[in-house]
Amino acid sequence: MKSTLSRRTFIASAAASMIPSAVGHAALRGGGMFIPTADEPQPAAAPSTSWKDAGVIDLTRSPFAKLKTVPVRAVTIQEGFWSKRRNTNVSSSIPTMHDELVAHGRMDNFLRLTGESSAPQKGPVYSDSDIYKWTEAVGFTLQTADQPELRKTADTMIREVVAVQEAGGYLNTYYVGDRKPLRMLYPTQETGHELYNMGHMLQAAVAYYRATGDPTLLNAGMRFIDQFLLPNYGPGKDQKGIVAGHPEIEMSLVELYRTTGKREYVDLAGYILHGDDRIPLTERQITYMFCGIPFTSRTKLEGHAVRAMYACCGAADYYLETGDPSYWKTLNALWEDLTAHQLYVTGGVGAREAGEAFGDAYELPNARAYGESCAAIGNMMWNWRMLAASGEARFADVMERALYNGINSGMSLDGTTYCYRNPLAFDPSGDSSDRHTPEGKIRNPWYDTTCCPPNLERTFASLPGYFYSTSSDGVYVHLYDNSEMNWHLPDGIGLKIKQETNYPWDGDVKIAISPSTPSEFVVYVRIPGWSAQSVVKVNGEQIDGAQSGNYLAIRRHWSANDVIELSFDMTTQLLRANPAVSEDRGRVAFQRGPVVFCMEQLDQGNLEHEMNLAGYAVKLDARTASQFEPNLLNGVMVLEHPGAITQVLTDPGLYYSADKTIREREIPIRVKLIPYYAWANRAPASMQVWIPYDEG
Amino acid sequence: MKSTLSRRTFIASAAASMIPSAVGHAALRGGGMFIPTADEPQPAAAPSTSWKDAGVIDLTRSPFAKLKTVPVRAVTIQEGFWSKRRNTNVSSSIPTMHDELVAHGRMDNFLRLTGESSAPQKGPVYSDSDIYKWTEAVGFTLQTADQPELRKTADTMIREVVAVQEAGGYLNTYYVGDRKPLRMLYPTQETGHELYNMGHMLQAAVAYYRATGDPTLLNAGMRFIDQFLLPNYGPGKDQKGIVAGHPEIEMSLVELYRTTGKREYVDLAGYILHGDDRIPLTERQITYMFCGIPFTSRTKLEGHAVRAMYACCGAADYYLETGDPSYWKTLNALWEDLTAHQLYVTGGVGAREAGEAFGDAYELPNARAYGESCAAIGNMMWNWRMLAASGEARFADVMERALYNGINSGMSLDGTTYCYRNPLAFDPSGDSSDRHTPEGKIRNPWYDTTCCPPNLERTFASLPGYFYSTSSDGVYVHLYDNSEMNWHLPDGIGLKIKQETNYPWDGDVKIAISPSTPSEFVVYVRIPGWSAQSVVKVNGEQIDGAQSGNYLAIRRHWSANDVIELSFDMTTQLLRANPAVSEDRGRVAFQRGPVVFCMEQLDQGNLEHEMNLAGYAVKLDARTASQFEPNLLNGVMVLEHPGAITQVLTDPGLYYSADKTIREREIPIRVKLIPYYAWANRAPASMQVWIPYDEG
Repeated sequence: MKSTLSRRTFIASAAASMIPSAVGHAALRGGGMFIPTADEPQPAAAPSTSWKDAGVIDLTRSPFAKLKTVPVRAVTIQEGFWSKRRNTNVSSSIPTMHDELVAHGRMDNFLRLTGESSAPQKGPVYSDSDIYKWTEAVGFTLQTADQPELRKTADTMIREVVAVQEAGGYLNTYYVGDRKPLRMLYPTQETGHELYNMGHMLQAAVAYYRATGDPTLLNAGMRFIDQFLLPNYGPGKDQKGIVAGHPEIEMSLVELYRTTGKREYVDLAGYILHGDDRIPLTERQITYMFCGIPFTSRTKLEGHAVRAMYACCGAADYYLETGDPSYWKTLNALWEDLTAHQLYVTGGVGAREAGEAFGDAYELPNARAYGESCAAIGNMMWNWRMLAASGEARFADVMERALYNGINSGMSLDGTTYCYRNPLAFDPSGDSSDRHTPEGKIRNPWYDTTCCPPNLERTFASLPGYFYSTSSDGVYVHLYDNSEMNWHLPDGIGLKIKQETNYPWDGDVKIAISPSTPSEFVVYVRIPGWSAQSVVKVNGEQIDGAQSGNYLAIRRHWSANDVIELSFDMTTQLLRANPAVSEDRGRVAFQRGPVVFCMEQLDQGNLEHEMNLAGYAVKLDARTASQFEPNLLNGVMVLEHPGAITQVLTDPGLYYSADKTIREREIPIRVKLIPYYAWANRAPASMQVWIPYDEG
Repeated sequence: MKSTLSRRTFIASAAASMIPSAVGHAALRGGGMFIPTADEPQPAAAPSTSWKDAGVIDLTRSPFAKLKTVPVRAVTIQEGFWSKRRNTNVSSSIPTMHDELVAHGRMDNFLRLTGESSAPQKGPVYSDSDIYKWTEAVGFTLQTADQPELRKTADTMIREVVAVQEAGGYLNTYYVGDRKPLRMLYPTQETGHELYNMGHMLQAAVAYYRATGDPTLLNAGMRFIDQFLLPNYGPGKDQKGIVAGHPEIEMSLVELYRTTGKREYVDLAGYILHGDDRIPLTERQITYMFCGIPFTSRTKLEGHAVRAMYACCGAADYYLETGDPSYWKTLNALWEDLTAHQLYVTGGVGAREAGEAFGDAYELPNARAYGESCAAIGNMMWNWRMLAASGEARFADVMERALYNGINSGMSLDGTTYCYRNPLAFDPSGDSSDRHTPEGKIRNPWYDTTCCPPNLERTFASLPGYFYSTSSDGVYVHLYDNSEMNWHLPDGIGLKIKQETNYPWDGDVKIAISPSTPSEFVVYVRIPGWSAQSVVKVNGEQIDGAQSGNYLAIRRHWSANDVIELSFDMTTQLLRANPAVSEDRGRVAFQRGPVVFCMEQLDQGNLEHEMNLAGYAVKLDARTASQFEPNLLNGVMVLEHPGAITQVLTDPGLYYSADKTIREREIPIRVKLIPYYAWANRAPASMQVWIPYDEG
């Protein structure tokens, strides 16, 4: 990275001419509300939360949020399942992705515009967002860890980004020079990703501000909205039409409101979610982009999966601030569509490579599954918002399914390579034509469209913020892992929660509840949908009412070191898919706790006739054995299940009449399964989640 | 097309300085043997057959050919199954492909080198072969039909091609100018397709000579071999190494020998089939290219499917001339591998898109099947040669399977679009990333690698030549359709054979045998492998001995208008695949006569819940009804078979535990099937050959 010394001077002077030294809430309705830059960061204006107290999203004042977020920094994930992933994320993924971004010219795109690089523009129109998502990952990291080198690097990049912002607030490295006339034209709005880039910039800015109190990037983002976007585009009759193109700006505008208290941002998000008739769109665009018509007129998930998920996030955020019932109705209808017709067992979404899109209902191919990492992340983000609005565990179940499986699979165990697609079956010899599987490699350190890698990084960095919520009457426990929360209830009573567990390998979780003052409140513990039989004890005494797929409300007078003990049913489940899912006919998937398993060819031993994995079948009525293997794939639970390979003794040739009697022999085998998230971390090999079965 | 007037003058004068006016056989062993150009074509030199009497390949004098080919022109295919395809081929495919070739600069590549075009080089290194294969298609067409316009066009193109040949015999439009130094270097030999192009040129030249007696292209081909290749590359110690790269030159060299009598061509083919140690090759290249090591050291089919098939054709041709037993042994071992492990039920070969390659044994995916049209054609050509060497019907069975299904599917019914891949299952929404299925379209008028379209055209144009062979003791009948043969037995007795049939829709074939003089000989009629019960009558009297998958030898004293009546078993067969073929588990394919059937979504009616085709299952023990529909797809037999769609009544959600009791309802349906070759001729729709079944 370059030294930022001279740059900082430049920024400071530019800021001096543009940014009022301090503003109160009253000033927000006017043109410009800015948060002062200063060595000692100052709190934001009135309606927003102190930067230190805001969560992944900040629902502190959201009127329709039944659950309030807990700051990321208030939760410490300790040694256990997620600590490995999070340590690798900081030590390996974020630094190597920085180097990849620089090596592929993503920072040169900015530096060129200030004359500090002579490299040509590189990457697609959405390349700026790669930098922003990486910066957001750093922001979340800095909320729980002191990483001075990382902060220094990010500070430098932020200053290099902000230096490019034009006087009118515009900031985008692609629509400059010869391309400047294309800015925000109708066709550019549909495909140019200007607002998508800015949405990610705002999310990065908010995360970075919540980590450091430094509003540099946040102010730049506000300048874009206040000085460029709002005065020229949107509601007014003299203004031009606006369409998100790739939804993302909606949720970031709401979060910008939550950070600054400026209501126009929510209104603008609502405006974009409603669609602007002045932008002429075809049916195909409306389907593909999942925007441009009233969000509340949607009845099913379709089109580009990431766009649809991000649009649902934005709509849920809009609902959390406005309570508009038509949004809640639509969001629930879409969620029903998701879980009834469109959700992979891994929590991934998006069946088709063509258009990176949802397929028809029940169209859930395995080898051809798209399941983009970004879409699974969008799915989790959407369900997080639905959970906050309702307090209903069904949303947390989907979140957990995506997190442990279809998201977690997206990053290699060593944190240096990533899946763009997350298929449910794979043959390394057959996929060379897929642009996201070059030479049959499903995990790669870089994609020219590198949306997924930094998206995974920001997700794992923000993970502590998803463990708990508070409510008017107490606290919710959503996720389980060794961890400590140090926060407070809405009435101000301090609350520490300490979890001890070997989850997800083991179903026992011990939760110590320690209020600063003994008091009555409710602890809502999540009973996962997959746990058929669950036992809950408080201070050793069993309590009734635990229902799978619900929160169990434990209302009592809590004192320091009261202990809840949860015991979930870790029996391995053989799942079938609805018969309408054609590719899963005659097949089962294995799930144990929240973890979905898969077969990799590497684990099936040296059989006489090697064949691709579909040659194996498991016995439907047999029992599964499980064993933890500490030296395999960074330590994973492994399943073994009886199965067979069918061999023909009277060779019928390759094809034979169905009424011909053929003698077959079943070679008994034990099928070995590993967690799906850990696949493709060794040599390239065939893999499948849905495994054929033989009855009996 | 340009006028050829000035060009012809140029050629004539060039020819005058290079080509002896006439040569006898004695001159052949020297450097140059040429066939004189003349308005009245003259017969070739001694050992070759008169140009009018040569078949698809000319086995008249091949010592190890048990069966001798019959000239294409000696057989007239009359109105029936193949006449539609062949009429369309001449009226539509060949003319439109000509225009596509010209539009895509394939002729400009030649014209540029004589200064008659200023267009830049276009297309891949093997683009010259597109012109040659098209010319070969014209050659075969002119062997059975008088098409003066087509001949005029082809004559012009041939003269434009020949004008490009350099003084040293070299002819290739790609390795000129800056690329000239790359000619025939080691790496160029492996990937540059120079000998592949020349192989197709020789095949075109031979077919055109056999059609017209015009040796213009043939002489140019011989100049390449005699003046450029043989003096510089191959056996001699001062010469450079040689490798085919993409096999094709081998079989064309043998055919050039059969046409000219020059034995060096066979020796050179053998040399190339053996491999040249001076060319350093990796294991991967040896596998992929299917050449470079002794052909006789091969033990299985692997690598690029078309290369492997063409290599097998060349090796079989070499065996037919030399009788080398190690070749026959290897060819049979490879054939066993083909039919036991690698052959699609459609006769297609080549499982993988990666490397356009064979997969492992039993690796025969359906939707991902590559099944390149060229590979199915290569399969037919190879089996034609194996049949000629042995007289064994097992080879004719494979030939017929490929011809009616995996080849016939390659051309649309209207003859203007082509399949590059011929998958056995298809979802139009999911294949956009495949370079041979742009925008989900499996049939296209043009591919930048346009090998398949003219290959299909030459195959259908040459089809009459595959119907019959003669042997030392009589005549073989291989294929069935309304047709007349007018040829002679080896002893000179004239023989007419007239077939009347509605094959392949009907199993009855009436064959009138009319020798010019009553005499004793054998008529070998093929009893197809798929016909479980076959009845054969001569002059109304049943004769014994018909065995499926064998020729029935009918030896008698034949007189004019003796009649053989064949009656094959047209019961629809439900075929299973060997259990090792994982993708076909729990599925059946329908075959009736030689025709393999498939389901297309379009024919399944409007069901309440549309779903992709795998949602349907057929009843295994039910009977299939068949009916000819004259107005569907140019007239096809249609099958109907009872089946069901399974619907869940107690909605279990998308996934549910395998031990949960779910109430299901089967909606009875009648599954409708059309011939596989006719799929994708209407609106884009899902298709599958292998259909799930329910027991009972």
